Amino acid sequence: MAILSALGTEVFIPVAAAVGVAFAVAQWLLVARVKVNPAHAAAAASAGGGKNGGYGDYLIEEEEGLNDHNVVVKCHEIQTAISEGATSFLFTEYQYVGIFMSIFAVVIFLFLGSVEGFSTKSQPCTYSKDKYCKPALFNALFSTASFLLGAITSLVSGYLGMKIATFANARTTLEARKGVGKAFIIAFRSGAVMGFLLASSGLVVLYIAINVFKLYYGDDWEGLFESITGYGLGGSSMALFGRVGGGIYTKAADVGADLVGKVERNIPEDDPRNPAVIADNVGDNVGDIAGMGSDLFGSYAESSCAALVVASISSFGINHDFTGMCYPLLVSSVGIIVCLITTLFATDFFEIKAVKEIEPALKKQLIISTALMTVGIAIISWLALPAKFTIFNFGAQKEVTNWGLFFCVAIGLWAGLIIGFVTEYYTSNAYSPVQDVADSCRTGAATNVIFGLALGYKSVIIPIFAIAVSIYVSFSIAAMYGIAVAALGMLSTIATGLAIDAYGPISDNAGGIAEMAGMSHRIRERTDALDAAGNTTAAIGKGFAIGSAALVSLALFGAFVSRAGVKVVDVLSPKVFIGLIVGAMLPYWFSAMTMKSVGSAALKMVEEVRRQFNSIPGLMEGTGKPDYATCVKISTDASIKEMIPPGALVMLTPLIVGTLFGVETLSGVLAGALVSGVQIAISASNTGGAWDNAKKYIEAGASEHARTLGPKGSDCHKAAVIGDTIGDPLKDTSGPSLNILIKLMAVESLVFAPFFATHGGLLFKWF
Amino acid sequence: MAILSALGTEVFIPVAAAVGVAFAVAQWLLVARVKVNPAHAAAAASAGGGKNGGYGDYLIEEEEGLNDHNVVVKCHEIQTAISEGATSFLFTEYQYVGIFMSIFAVVIFLFLGSVEGFSTKSQPCTYSKDKYCKPALFNALFSTASFLLGAITSLVSGYLGMKIATFANARTTLEARKGVGKAFIIAFRSGAVMGFLLASSGLVVLYIAINVFKLYYGDDWEGLFESITGYGLGGSSMALFGRVGGGIYTKAADVGADLVGKVERNIPEDDPRNPAVIADNVGDNVGDIAGMGSDLFGSYAESSCAALVVASISSFGINHDFTGMCYPLLVSSVGIIVCLITTLFATDFFEIKAVKEIEPALKKQLIISTALMTVGIAIISWLALPAKFTIFNFGAQKEVTNWGLFFCVAIGLWAGLIIGFVTEYYTSNAYSPVQDVADSCRTGAATNVIFGLALGYKSVIIPIFAIAVSIYVSFSIAAMYGIAVAALGMLSTIATGLAIDAYGPISDNAGGIAEMAGMSHRIRERTDALDAAGNTTAAIGKGFAIGSAALVSLALFGAFVSRAGVKVVDVLSPKVFIGLIVGAMLPYWFSAMTMKSVGSAALKMVEEVRRQFNSIPGLMEGTGKPDYATCVKISTDASIKEMIPPGALVMLTPLIVGTLFGVETLSGVLAGALVSGVQIAISASNTGGAWDNAKKYIEAGASEHARTLGPKGSDCHKAAVIGDTIGDPLKDTSGPSLNILIKLMAVESLVFAPFFATHGGLLFKWF
Repeated sequence: MAILSALGTEVFIPVAAAVGVAFAVAQWLLVARVKVNPAHAAAAASAGGGKNGGYGDYLIEEEEGLNDHNVVVKCHEIQTAISEGATSFLFTEYQYVGIFMSIFAVVIFLFLGSVEGFSTKSQPCTYSKDKYCKPALFNALFSTASFLLGAITSLVSGYLGMKIATFANARTTLEARKGVGKAFIIAFRSGAVMGFLLASSGLVVLYIAINVFKLYYGDDWEGLFESITGYGLGGSSMALFGRVGGGIYTKAADVGADLVGKVERNIPEDDPRNPAVIADNVGDNVGDIAGMGSDLFGSYAESSCAALVVASISSFGINHDFTGMCYPLLVSSVGIIVCLITTLFATDFFEIKAVKEIEPALKKQLIISTALMTVGIAIISWLALPAKFTIFNFGAQKEVTNWGLFFCVAIGLWAGLIIGFVTEYYTSNAYSPVQDVADSCRTGAATNVIFGLALGYKSVIIPIFAIAVSIYVSFSIAAMYGIAVAALGMLSTIATGLAIDAYGPISDNAGGIAEMAGMSHRIRERTDALDAAGNTTAAIGKGFAIGSAALVSLALFGAFVSRAGVKVVDVLSPKVFIGLIVGAMLPYWFSAMTMKSVGSAALKMVEEVRRQFNSIPGLMEGTGKPDYATCVKISTDASIKEMIPPGALVMLTPLIVGTLFGVETLSGVLAGALVSGVQIAISASNTGGAWDNAKKYIEAGASEHARTLGPKGSDCHKAAVIGDTIGDPLKDTSGPSLNILIKLMAVESLVFAPFFATHGGLLFKWF
Repeated sequence: MAILSALGTEVFIPVAAAVGVAFAVAQWLLVARVKVNPAHAAAAASAGGGKNGGYGDYLIEEEEGLNDHNVVVKCHEIQTAISEGATSFLFTEYQYVGIFMSIFAVVIFLFLGSVEGFSTKSQPCTYSKDKYCKPALFNALFSTASFLLGAITSLVSGYLGMKIATFANARTTLEARKGVGKAFIIAFRSGAVMGFLLASSGLVVLYIAINVFKLYYGDDWEGLFESITGYGLGGSSMALFGRVGGGIYTKAADVGADLVGKVERNIPEDDPRNPAVIADNVGDNVGDIAGMGSDLFGSYAESSCAALVVASISSFGINHDFTGMCYPLLVSSVGIIVCLITTLFATDFFEIKAVKEIEPALKKQLIISTALMTVGIAIISWLALPAKFTIFNFGAQKEVTNWGLFFCVAIGLWAGLIIGFVTEYYTSNAYSPVQDVADSCRTGAATNVIFGLALGYKSVIIPIFAIAVSIYVSFSIAAMYGIAVAALGMLSTIATGLAIDAYGPISDNAGGIAEMAGMSHRIRERTDALDAAGNTTAAIGKGFAIGSAALVSLALFGAFVSRAGVKVVDVLSPKVFIGLIVGAMLPYWFSAMTMKSVGSAALKMVEEVRRQFNSIPGLMEGTGKPDYATCVKISTDASIKEMIPPGALVMLTPLIVGTLFGVETLSGVLAGALVSGVQIAISASNTGGAWDNAKKYIEAGASEHARTLGPKGSDCHKAAVIGDTIGDPLKDTSGPSLNILIKLMAVESLVFAPFFATHGGLLFKWF
């Protein structure tokens, strides 16, 4: 068997997770050394100045306004306001989502319990017909428990991410006084705190759950890992609401603030006179940070669950090979170690000294982590896998070698890198596509939009080919298990991915705080430079999220089909085909809902901001104080109200289709939503990213060409701002929510598969 | 057997076609009575004034400027310029397409001939294994011949349509002097000329081809109708280039003219000072008229071919039941008679007296034709079909009743009506969706675009359900044959559909001519009212085209799968799945190409128009004369050059995939392109239509709400113009081309099926 013993596995996973947590804490302590509490700041500055070597030394390289305590006080105030707004929104959101989740937990229990009429007798196993498995009622109970566990972990992930980001934003601003390199380190370290905490907690909770469930299930691994899939469903359901709610929040505030502030009143972004400015900054934290944290955690949980459930009916599960069974968790454990080393390259081995080094530094993170991870996967595949084993493949067992499986994980990993780089090419203003879009602003907003949409459509081509090749190769090697581990490979460097991703909104917030605290334009320029790189990395992060979502959904789909006992999903069967075409329509329906929601919420915000500008005396002159709280409330109310219908669409579709039309139509719906949703998701987020950076390209005026289009306030720039505003809901609300749509419908179908297989297809049974 | 004898069928089809042609000629003569030749006009006016009763009487009801011969002279000049521009473009286009078609004809012959190594020996039939069928070499020859026949018929259809439209446009303008009702009749009659000519010629050419081919094939109906599918491929290939080339032409000119004229120079639409104005009007004729004519002819040809090829291997073909075999042609024949009666309702039974009656009159056309056609289908199903027969269903024969088949055709017909009305709801400014979009212009172009995109996405929902239900029901009744006849049902009222569709661009042109000839603003208001109704009907027409394309493609797909000997298309097979996801990506790739083409061509146009305004002295004051010819040339060159890559993408994909990856992957590609393309096509054309009518809603100011947004030139109106401009390539270039993409790939796969089945999948064979 494998070199790594079961005991070794039992030890290695929690140790890796602990190392990840420890590293996160260490990074957090380094970030915390930047003081935003004015009293401490003064003390630290004088103390630091006296020391030689160590971190304190950095403080000597003062650049400007370092000892201006008023600035620190102001930053602290703003930070507190943002943090309070975000916390209060998340609590409100979690209340509503909590109710929904509780109801859904009951639904899970009732539906799954009903499979065998709530009987407490053991049943013959689905795959090993000669053995007896635990009763369906207990599977229902444990599925419900793991669903709640996944939801809570996801909730905590999002919340922690938000807390870290609101802890880091003002610190990044303050460090920006010392230089762009220093600010970068703080923002990046904070991102790393979030990345490592999430990756470790996702891993460790899953690990504990497996071990606890094993106490009851014993040798019934089929039932054990089937129940564990509830973890993925819980994580993803929470992520859906997080993404949609947060996405609506952030974009309503952003669009509302921009339309009145930038376009009508001609005041800069993040100007403290703009009543929506706090809501806008809160939005970055609840949407881009908490939403994305939940999202990637969901992907990670689902790909692990998909791999585990397939493995449980393969030779690992049948032979009770614990190490082989835990291969997905081992890959993630190695990922944490690899990402730890990778992070050091950004924070310790090199130093950022100029603006132009920021984007390469972030890109290097991707390359280094991918390269190291390839080695890591090779090692763990050699240690943890037997040389040969069999994988369940729709009724048959397929023989796979350990090197074959290594290849599956690696191809997913590298496909992710390709998708990342293609995304970067289409969304960074260093390359011609975005520059062409910027250039098209010469003839106005209309051509800008036409070019931007065309760019997004075009950017779909290579990622889809990369995904297709990964699917074909990994399926050929190891059937659906191959696809599941390919997804896991793409997500294995999640800690680094999250660090890079979270860095963007933190820098964005830092810029906002600098503006609001009235700091000099040089500080703002530095945070803007961080933010521009953040836009690209955010797009790359979304590329990863979508690519992995496609693979994960397919793996979950395969697992669902196996569980539901479907042998073929034949497009030529009308039951399947109507599912396919309706499934392909769902992403459009969903996008229509979310975009309309952002539009309506933004309209309300615009009216409120206009009202304040018109009715509060001295607001434009800076003598009157805007009413930030009302704007925060508008965003909160709108997003809570508007997140329910799209959320319900996604959560209810599999239930309704499965119950009324049965597993064949549901298979069609899943496949249709997958192949259509991936395209819209990629094109929406790249179009939005390109518009944003086209605008930044004109604003920055870094090249001869860019200067002919600018400066800020020129007709070209106005056209670019319109594109940017249109892109906001595309790239931050509907686009990124779509990958949750496709994953969530798949994992939900998988969890409910036993119910659909038994009681589903009522409509066809009746007629 | 059936009540209608084979002889009766042989007589009925050409008679129906002849009646259609005669009706078209009669309508044409009525249109021609409006004289644009100044000398004749004067004579006719005096002669008409003297007569009592009859057509001449109408001339007495003069309203304004009827005897101003200068206007007639000017209209004549402008009409000639437009007609010449359109003719010259079409000839250039046809030259290039001719070369492509010739090469492709050779490819067809070589590929299909190679199936049995160019052997001239008879082979065992594919489905009746005990019989001998004609050699593959002759199938290759006849397929090539029918391909060329289809291409030529499509070419002639487009050309004739353009000729009729450029004949009618100035006549509509001149009639508008007498009132909106008179102008409506002329525009509608001209549309009817085109509708009936195309429907009849499509039918009669197919009928003759079948009879001629039968001379060689005799009893080998399998080979006969397989070769006939080339007709659909020819029609569709031509349509692709017509739609894409014409679409790029018209939108480059339109966007270019609007951006400089309306936005920058603040001169009205169609102002004669705008150098791009002639190109813009030419565009309406080559894009919306010739392109659409080719497109709908292609759909008609393909749905007939799909039904025929399935029927040939069903009991009709096996028993050589000629009447049953010709059922698809008989349905179309009945359609011509029904549409003839329907047309009388618009032109003779009722009269338009006010602007608000235009849209209801057009809508009534749809309802009346659908209702009458339902009766017509019932009669022909009773006469032409045996009470029971069997239909080929992937290897088995399925029993069907004549009433069952009637139900299939009828459900397609009524699904078309539903799609039409949903489209109307989402694109007419009489309802809240477009009014909401108009309202969102208050906060600028960005919210307008967000709301417009959301509207388009939302408008997909009901049509997709309508299509899904049609597919499920018609497949359940009569397998793929049911789907093919459902598509035919949707297209059975094509003559009326085309009449309504062509009416729009004719009115648009009429408005342009009125403006350019310097006629009073009252005339322009009348043509604008005709045009606004035309926008909605154009969107409805596109809805029909897309809905029928979805059904046709599925039927062709089914026929392809049968021909290629594929038994199941299993989504769980990686070969199929990668096809599915790549296929779903193709519409995005294609749209990226076409939209970028429109954008680039428009940029060139903008530069030229700006150059002329800046360099030609007295142009703005109306003393200098613009250089229309250069703008016409820019549009021509750009569209010829830019139509090649998207055309090649569509034409080559099935060949490459089929040859390298084989029929399973190709099946996936077809299904993926179908389910994804339908959604983009519907949402693109509805979004564009909605923006166009939101703009018109603000301009017309017909309600209290609309007046708060207007008038022309207000900020709201400017935002609406931006939306309209973005919508242009969506609704007139990429959207409508997509339905050709999905049909064409399917019919091409069907034609090449024997080759792919024999020699395809090289890549998988090598590895």
